[in-house]
Amino acid sequence: MVRKLLVANRGEIAVRIIRAARELGISTVAVYSEADQEALHVRMADERVLIGPPAASRSYLDMDAIVTAAVDLGADAVHPGYGFLSERAEFAQKVADARVTFVGPSARTIRLMGDKARARSAADEAGVPTVPGSAGPVDGLPEALAAAERAGYPVAIKAAAGGGGRGIRVVADAAELAEALPVAQAEAQAAFGSGLVYIERFVEHARHIEVQVFGDGENFVHLGERECSMQRRRQKVLEEAGAPGLPENVRNAMTDAAVALAKVAAYTGAGTVEFLYDPATEEFYFIEMNTRIQVEHPVTEMVTGRDLVREQLTVASGAPLSFAQSDVEFRGHAIEVRLNAENPEFSFMPSPGVLSAMRMPGGPFVRIDSGFEPGGEVSPFYDSLLAKIVVWSDTRASAIARMARTLDEVEVEGVVTTAGFMRSVIDIEEFREGRYHTTFLEGWMAGRNKSGGNA
Amino acid sequence: MVRKLLVANRGEIAVRIIRAARELGISTVAVYSEADQEALHVRMADERVLIGPPAASRSYLDMDAIVTAAVDLGADAVHPGYGFLSERAEFAQKVADARVTFVGPSARTIRLMGDKARARSAADEAGVPTVPGSAGPVDGLPEALAAAERAGYPVAIKAAAGGGGRGIRVVADAAELAEALPVAQAEAQAAFGSGLVYIERFVEHARHIEVQVFGDGENFVHLGERECSMQRRRQKVLEEAGAPGLPENVRNAMTDAAVALAKVAAYTGAGTVEFLYDPATEEFYFIEMNTRIQVEHPVTEMVTGRDLVREQLTVASGAPLSFAQSDVEFRGHAIEVRLNAENPEFSFMPSPGVLSAMRMPGGPFVRIDSGFEPGGEVSPFYDSLLAKIVVWSDTRASAIARMARTLDEVEVEGVVTTAGFMRSVIDIEEFREGRYHTTFLEGWMAGRNKSGGNA
Repeated sequence: MVRKLLVANRGEIAVRIIRAARELGISTVAVYSEADQEALHVRMADERVLIGPPAASRSYLDMDAIVTAAVDLGADAVHPGYGFLSERAEFAQKVADARVTFVGPSARTIRLMGDKARARSAADEAGVPTVPGSAGPVDGLPEALAAAERAGYPVAIKAAAGGGGRGIRVVADAAELAEALPVAQAEAQAAFGSGLVYIERFVEHARHIEVQVFGDGENFVHLGERECSMQRRRQKVLEEAGAPGLPENVRNAMTDAAVALAKVAAYTGAGTVEFLYDPATEEFYFIEMNTRIQVEHPVTEMVTGRDLVREQLTVASGAPLSFAQSDVEFRGHAIEVRLNAENPEFSFMPSPGVLSAMRMPGGPFVRIDSGFEPGGEVSPFYDSLLAKIVVWSDTRASAIARMARTLDEVEVEGVVTTAGFMRSVIDIEEFREGRYHTTFLEGWMAGRNKSGGNA
Repeated sequence: MVRKLLVANRGEIAVRIIRAARELGISTVAVYSEADQEALHVRMADERVLIGPPAASRSYLDMDAIVTAAVDLGADAVHPGYGFLSERAEFAQKVADARVTFVGPSARTIRLMGDKARARSAADEAGVPTVPGSAGPVDGLPEALAAAERAGYPVAIKAAAGGGGRGIRVVADAAELAEALPVAQAEAQAAFGSGLVYIERFVEHARHIEVQVFGDGENFVHLGERECSMQRRRQKVLEEAGAPGLPENVRNAMTDAAVALAKVAAYTGAGTVEFLYDPATEEFYFIEMNTRIQVEHPVTEMVTGRDLVREQLTVASGAPLSFAQSDVEFRGHAIEVRLNAENPEFSFMPSPGVLSAMRMPGGPFVRIDSGFEPGGEVSPFYDSLLAKIVVWSDTRASAIARMARTLDEVEVEGVVTTAGFMRSVIDIEEFREGRYHTTFLEGWMAGRNKSGGNA
């Protein structure tokens, strides 16, 4: 069993990991930048090491500083959390080379899933559907037209070097494609330094649904799906478990596909298989696999009663999975809201500052995960996640009522938060009815602005 | 459905009720004494009424002031919480007479269960075992000896007017009984103004286990049992769901008995049937039925996923029970610690004061119910319950580890709390092994004091 764990992260996920470690009797080492000297995760850990200046590139992303700290303090494992170095194969390798356990899959698996083309091949091998299209850069118009024909219109022309929604053009038919292709290539060249583009079917009103998987190298299970379609600028702002209105046969096919992919990768640890889901056709397509714990893992924990971070630590210690697929039972519905220190009135600009007051909701079936406490400081150097507010209830409708109640209880002074904005999202009819997709929120906000309301 | 609810209580249970009401779309009225002007429950309610000076007898126990407030503000229901007026049949009747719904059973049922002899008769009728003994005051030595013979030695001589552990003498045989009876009668006369005593079998190392029941007048269910044997001066300090090591056949017999009693009483609302359990013989005996929500109801909520206060409100609104017995499923284990503003170093003297800091634990499977917030004041006028810290986990062992972790996270300044004391209770071997009874903690504390440790 791991005895001493270095937590290579900050904020709420570092606190989450420290809590899980403490409950297992594992002592903890926090790393921190000069901006985080007073941070909660630093105060909660048993030991702490300053690793550099505030800029993440010189602290939380400094692989050598972190590996050195682990070795110097005798840590026998490193948990990368999410973000930062969590999906950097090179880091996993450096940790392993130092004879320290990396809490996550092997560097090889991280590399495989981090490579779009190879991940897609793995999905093909596992029989997991991928988005129809050229499966790689297209060389000229004839190839593009053929790929589009196979995929079915409308199709998206995507810059191979793009990502996160940038570098995408949607065309409705062959004529539009012929016209748009050279423009898209030129734009890609200008924007990303590479003119390579590929063709993919464009799914309108697509939902982002992901499946939590777990493996120990030999056994592979899923813990159900999460609905992550409530997004602003491709950033999730609210997540649910399970996905509202997802047909049971689709859910089964999707979770089976996710487990099949984990098996093909001989996966170890917690992972998330992301799918694009087309509610119109009930088809789903593999997008990518995240080889780490997700921000939104608590909704899965609340419906399954499984502690995913504890499981990460025991599996990393060499234990087999503590449960089989047949042990996984789903109860009720969970919703997470990401409470950010951002100003919705000013394009969601980060709102750093000292938390002169911070009162979080409590009571039945409410969970708060935060890296902050009253009096703490939200730094301008890092992401603006102030707290995750997670609620559970026996039905989705009562979980929504509970989330409304908890958001009303939030009181924060010293920084501006998204609590009020998220409270209004909770009231949107399409949300209440479970009819929303990845671009829904942007559209709703645009409509509200047009009609004179405040964003 | 209830539209406006007056909450006839204060502190964490008032906050708990307001939260449940809000989630159901019910507006709330808080009542408060002059000492509670700034209290959290007052701030959270939609409306508030000052009902009197700090002394509870002139505010939270003032039936007429509360009923008048309900009528004046147009509340169509009153929730009494626990303590205060919650088990006063007269109050339930006054509420009903004002044509306002009392959230709880009828005045008739409260009166029945509040009368020891009648409650015992109801138990007999339901086939629920009661403690063997005289079943009423004994007239002289021959009657006492006969009752003791039937009950089996050792027996307790109990003052009929006593209670809460006061006015009890234990004797081992007939000779001791003959000697002790006149002394016990004289003591009872002196202490309680009545020399009446009765005889009951004395169960050594008895455990206090209670069953949560719910009724709508026609359907009656249980939601499992709670272990409440960790007590100091007959006050519960920690509760568990379920009871550790309780044999399955005993659990079934006990929950069946509780439901049978609810049925005999044609019970409506939430109730708790308390049993004394003898682990040596695996026999259990009815003690009393509490006709209200209990302090420790959250442990039941966490293992069953049922919101008991919401159910109180819907049943009081005239709806049938929202679930059947077969819908009640138990998952994992829950533990509650009562965090009190008391000083363990000075005989647990109340420690009122301003909460200059109050940091409560968070994270996975942790629930905090508190009537206080940072900056609030713990008043000397009321009980010293600062917060209930409740944890859940898949096993009892991991729930204990989680409770240890959460207690370590508690940080309160301005008042002294029992967090450190409860943290040491969590580490007691007998607790970890589930081998404790209602007088265990007192014995442990006495032993610790003798051996030079700090209480």
